[in-house]
Amino acid sequence: MSMLIERLAIIGVGLIGGSLALALRQAGVVGEIVGGGRSQRSLQRAQSLGVIDRYEVDLLQAVQGADMVVLAMPVGAIAASYAQLLPGLSADAVVTDVGSTKASVLQAIAAQLGQVPANFVAAHPVAGTEKSGAAAAFPALFRNRRVIVTPTADTLSPAVARVEAMWQACGARVSQMQPEHHDTVLAATSHLPHLLAFALVDCLAGMDDGQEIFTYAAGGFRDFTRIAASHPQMWADICTANASALLAVLDRYEHTLTELRQAIGSADHAQLVASFERARQAREHFAGQMGNLQQLDGAME
Amino acid sequence: MSMLIERLAIIGVGLIGGSLALALRQAGVVGEIVGGGRSQRSLQRAQSLGVIDRYEVDLLQAVQGADMVVLAMPVGAIAASYAQLLPGLSADAVVTDVGSTKASVLQAIAAQLGQVPANFVAAHPVAGTEKSGAAAAFPALFRNRRVIVTPTADTLSPAVARVEAMWQACGARVSQMQPEHHDTVLAATSHLPHLLAFALVDCLAGMDDGQEIFTYAAGGFRDFTRIAASHPQMWADICTANASALLAVLDRYEHTLTELRQAIGSADHAQLVASFERARQAREHFAGQMGNLQQLDGAME
Repeated sequence: MSMLIERLAIIGVGLIGGSLALALRQAGVVGEIVGGGRSQRSLQRAQSLGVIDRYEVDLLQAVQGADMVVLAMPVGAIAASYAQLLPGLSADAVVTDVGSTKASVLQAIAAQLGQVPANFVAAHPVAGTEKSGAAAAFPALFRNRRVIVTPTADTLSPAVARVEAMWQACGARVSQMQPEHHDTVLAATSHLPHLLAFALVDCLAGMDDGQEIFTYAAGGFRDFTRIAASHPQMWADICTANASALLAVLDRYEHTLTELRQAIGSADHAQLVASFERARQAREHFAGQMGNLQQLDGAME
Repeated sequence: MSMLIERLAIIGVGLIGGSLALALRQAGVVGEIVGGGRSQRSLQRAQSLGVIDRYEVDLLQAVQGADMVVLAMPVGAIAASYAQLLPGLSADAVVTDVGSTKASVLQAIAAQLGQVPANFVAAHPVAGTEKSGAAAAFPALFRNRRVIVTPTADTLSPAVARVEAMWQACGARVSQMQPEHHDTVLAATSHLPHLLAFALVDCLAGMDDGQEIFTYAAGGFRDFTRIAASHPQMWADICTANASALLAVLDRYEHTLTELRQAIGSADHAQLVASFERARQAREHFAGQMGNLQQLDGAME
């Protein structure tokens, strides 16, 4: 019987890579799953958890004979790993990533390899939790989630089709975007909120009465700052990789904040109500789209 | 049999006032519960939902014979309502509020009545959801939540004790603070996060591709912006009432954000990691305290 993926190599078996392995296994569309990465201890743990079948610390070994290679590491490390494993790739292998930024990944790969290989399909599963590591992986992570694929003019269509089929097998809803447009959208909905949440918790923790302040934090604060428990190294990578789109939306945000500050300072109640009302209506308008994630989120927490 | 509260008057039967009524009823510590407020329709609904026993639109009637009067309206409306109902109060009545700011409420009452009455006990239950109205009320809202009582030097001790006993009967954990200190703590943990969430959603909704942006928002965004679904009028009240403490912590926040902006602009990866790591550690350190709210929050959602 022919599988969608005969041998899958996942380089970086963390939350995303591990959940992908579990989802594809559950869907019955993958033969063997080989893990690769720098930390033998993490790979051993992933194997003992049943996330991967076996592992290789040497990336050339890890990708050997694989028809699908997933680079599931922080965005800053993708190009270098790609260069390292390139000589070991099979001729028919498709390579893809799971990075949260896309233009910078493509640029880094082009800089490292001379050009972006035609069998490389940049992709981003818009899913995750604030947890990290293979132990946090679970097969439903991508169910009903968006996966954005950002092929270029040079990307081979059959390679795109295989990557899309892989994510669809995980229950994800796949769509395509230009890499730069992806980065603008994600800067607004993901990178900026993470930056704002990290900034808030760091800011409050540095206050003289920081200890007491957290004691009186209620449920709203907990929800608001959940994403500030995310992986610092990974998010520093994302912020620098997507700097221009992130700084552009941060400009807009600071402009909005300045207007609100002035309204508070001048007790302009009407302007505050108008802004808060626009926000509430926008959130309610889009709650339906966000709402279908609720069931899964509940299961995650 | 003598009750903790023989006749309770709740002026403003919304989420907080309604939940207080349900909690005290469930605890079996209240005789009659009378609702008061401007909207006959809301009061009728609260009565038909079983939240209150009866209602009076005339505030003088609503507080007649009550030994406990709770002002459960937006902070900007408390002093005027107090002045209105004052002639109807029984000699032994204790009056309290549930406002999210305390110094401004005390100032407004002093300005309106000439002084803060000795039987007025300013209080703030640190609890709520993004929903509003008596239909959203539920008796467990205050269980294991903090209630901060901010008596002044002139407040009668027996009045403070009665208000504390009322909240303890709801399962809340009661503590005392200076009014100004309360406002500083809440500006940091509640008012600023709400402002930041409202600002983000309003900012993104105003972008050209706002529609598409929300389509690709994932679970983290939903959590982060949940509080942006809160009541606009109420939060405009809070922001203007607590303007000085809120602007002070907003200054600190914008300073942190400026540092992060510079780190992103100069690709200072180490500084970003350091800030994000401090945030993650602070959040984890205090997760235990916030964690005991999780069970209840889960039930609410």
